[in-house]
Amino acid sequence: MGASAPAASSVGQVERQTARLFTDTDPLRLANGETLGPVDVAFETYGTLSEARDNAVFICHALTGDAHAAGFAPGATRPGWWDNLIGPGKPLDTDRVFVICANLLGGCQGTTGPSSINPATGKPYGLSFPLLTVADLVEVHRALVRHLGITTLLAALGGSLGGMQVLQWGLTYPDELANAVVIAASSRLTAQNIAFSAVARRAIMDDPDFAGGDYATEGLNPDAGLAIARMMAHITYLSEDALTEKFGRQPHQASSAPGFGIDFAVESYLDHQGQVFTERFDALSYLYLSRVMDYFDPFAAADALDAVTADPVTWLVMSFDTDWRFGTEHSRRIARRLELAAQPVTFREIASPWGHDSFLLVVPDYHATITAFFNRALAEVQR
Amino acid sequence: MGASAPAASSVGQVERQTARLFTDTDPLRLANGETLGPVDVAFETYGTLSEARDNAVFICHALTGDAHAAGFAPGATRPGWWDNLIGPGKPLDTDRVFVICANLLGGCQGTTGPSSINPATGKPYGLSFPLLTVADLVEVHRALVRHLGITTLLAALGGSLGGMQVLQWGLTYPDELANAVVIAASSRLTAQNIAFSAVARRAIMDDPDFAGGDYATEGLNPDAGLAIARMMAHITYLSEDALTEKFGRQPHQASSAPGFGIDFAVESYLDHQGQVFTERFDALSYLYLSRVMDYFDPFAAADALDAVTADPVTWLVMSFDTDWRFGTEHSRRIARRLELAAQPVTFREIASPWGHDSFLLVVPDYHATITAFFNRALAEVQR
Repeated sequence: MGASAPAASSVGQVERQTARLFTDTDPLRLANGETLGPVDVAFETYGTLSEARDNAVFICHALTGDAHAAGFAPGATRPGWWDNLIGPGKPLDTDRVFVICANLLGGCQGTTGPSSINPATGKPYGLSFPLLTVADLVEVHRALVRHLGITTLLAALGGSLGGMQVLQWGLTYPDELANAVVIAASSRLTAQNIAFSAVARRAIMDDPDFAGGDYATEGLNPDAGLAIARMMAHITYLSEDALTEKFGRQPHQASSAPGFGIDFAVESYLDHQGQVFTERFDALSYLYLSRVMDYFDPFAAADALDAVTADPVTWLVMSFDTDWRFGTEHSRRIARRLELAAQPVTFREIASPWGHDSFLLVVPDYHATITAFFNRALAEVQR
Repeated sequence: MGASAPAASSVGQVERQTARLFTDTDPLRLANGETLGPVDVAFETYGTLSEARDNAVFICHALTGDAHAAGFAPGATRPGWWDNLIGPGKPLDTDRVFVICANLLGGCQGTTGPSSINPATGKPYGLSFPLLTVADLVEVHRALVRHLGITTLLAALGGSLGGMQVLQWGLTYPDELANAVVIAASSRLTAQNIAFSAVARRAIMDDPDFAGGDYATEGLNPDAGLAIARMMAHITYLSEDALTEKFGRQPHQASSAPGFGIDFAVESYLDHQGQVFTERFDALSYLYLSRVMDYFDPFAAADALDAVTADPVTWLVMSFDTDWRFGTEHSRRIARRLELAAQPVTFREIASPWGHDSFLLVVPDYHATITAFFNRALAEVQR
């Protein structure tokens, strides 16, 4: 990975599209009863929609992802964040499937979010933006699918918060998905998961430049707090062994005398992660989307499994053995609940040293499992 | 635990003492070659020193501890932080042993630290305070022991950073310790350990009220940053299961509508932990003492084991099975290195659900192990 020329199997150059899916007169109705409009959605597509419109795969991205999953933006030398999975001959083979990826509602990469302009005031929403749920994110995805003239998806697929969207989608609208791939996700965050996100949010909101959420209006940016949030979260995305293998106790090359700056290589790495994150991500989106995860608990409702029991989806649930953010116990719980609803579920724990981040990396067993799942899914469509 | 009347087996009311152990004309010589003076040390003692002066046990406290390990300060309703271990009939039986506990060099509870007044300027040292090592902390402990007229300790005992001091002391001056108890400690932090501390320090130093370390001079206090540091660290002190058992996904009772405040009980708990911490701890001490831990690596030196090989100490090394800050692999490494130096080492992994914090709690196997170790140690002295 890293900066390199487009690979032979790349989807090539891609361009971000935008669609206004809801308006102020025909707004999005949120799960909490509020309405939101307009809602613009940024998305990309890769591959070709079949004449039968039966080969569409929707990618749901994670907390800090965006619509640019594969290929190269104009002039870019680094491909999209899931380029190792999407392209000709890759597990999501764009010679066979039509892939859609959209920036989430509440995001900051082209889709309406808390730092978008509120037409009613002419200023960014800030903390007046409504609280969201995973169900709301899915409603916007569904509107985009309809907008593209598609009735049923071959599959939805996502990791972490992306997998949570796939799970919600499949449970609520099983008639719209033939297959669902839920990777390194959770159906219910633990107290520890919530605790880490709470500290991250605290770091953002306690930054004086957060300005009560009105930083954009005031020409500020809570970069220090957002960087701290990212640095801490980043520790939870990697296994302890991965950090040890990458950095161990190596000194930072630029370090001279010991002090309270960047003395160790791992400190330099985290500092860099925090810094580049502030250049691409928005503090309010971090608050809103992390809170969406805290509240997600789709199996809590008494009728949670009714729709999907009547109309099964074929599920693939995957975890990574060194993931300590959403470890195997989270995925196993999802698989068990689905089995209670008589769903066809394949559950796989993949051995990988890289922790939660594994879902973004080339782990051969992981990619082979997705390849096999889609070979089967496509064969069923073509039957 | 919690607020309660003094237990029958309490050491009763105790008072903090202070000793000036180094002066500006006879300063402490630090491992890095610098000197520091004056150095005042706050300490407490429990029990009675025997006529033979052979029953003294030195307690080394952890990152955020202090000299008040047992009994009740005047007017207090809560006892010292290790009161469950120290007292008549307790594992450190003050009817038999004489216990000493001192606030660490670099601390903020009566011993000279970075927020003490620098006599040369009349202002708090701030970041001009010298960087410390575990060896420096031990030098000050040794000076206190000499000050109390003691030549050889029956034992030194400590958890976490406390255990690191005990390890250093036993390796460097084995003639001064008959026994050493190293609990939930590490001889070498991992990249993940360092990473968490790096983020904590960043939160403190990025707080505008840190004021480059001169907050005391300017009448400020970086409470927001210090609270974030503590909240994050606190997550690492508890096992995931302990957090789940204590809080799970329970809502915070005072929470009404969802938002970005304190919605879940675990958020309320962390918030409280952060808040009370700022009332008792100093931001600069947090920086200095956490950095001490990052650099600790006593087995790295080629001659690390020479002294103790010539003059063995009897070691007890303990870990807790759910500790993910300094897990069993850290303690096992210490035990193995000591075995290489032909030391008598008892290594025990204790089953406990509470993670790193277990060393502060009443875990029956843990206390029974310490009781047995000291019964044997006292029997050898009296032989």
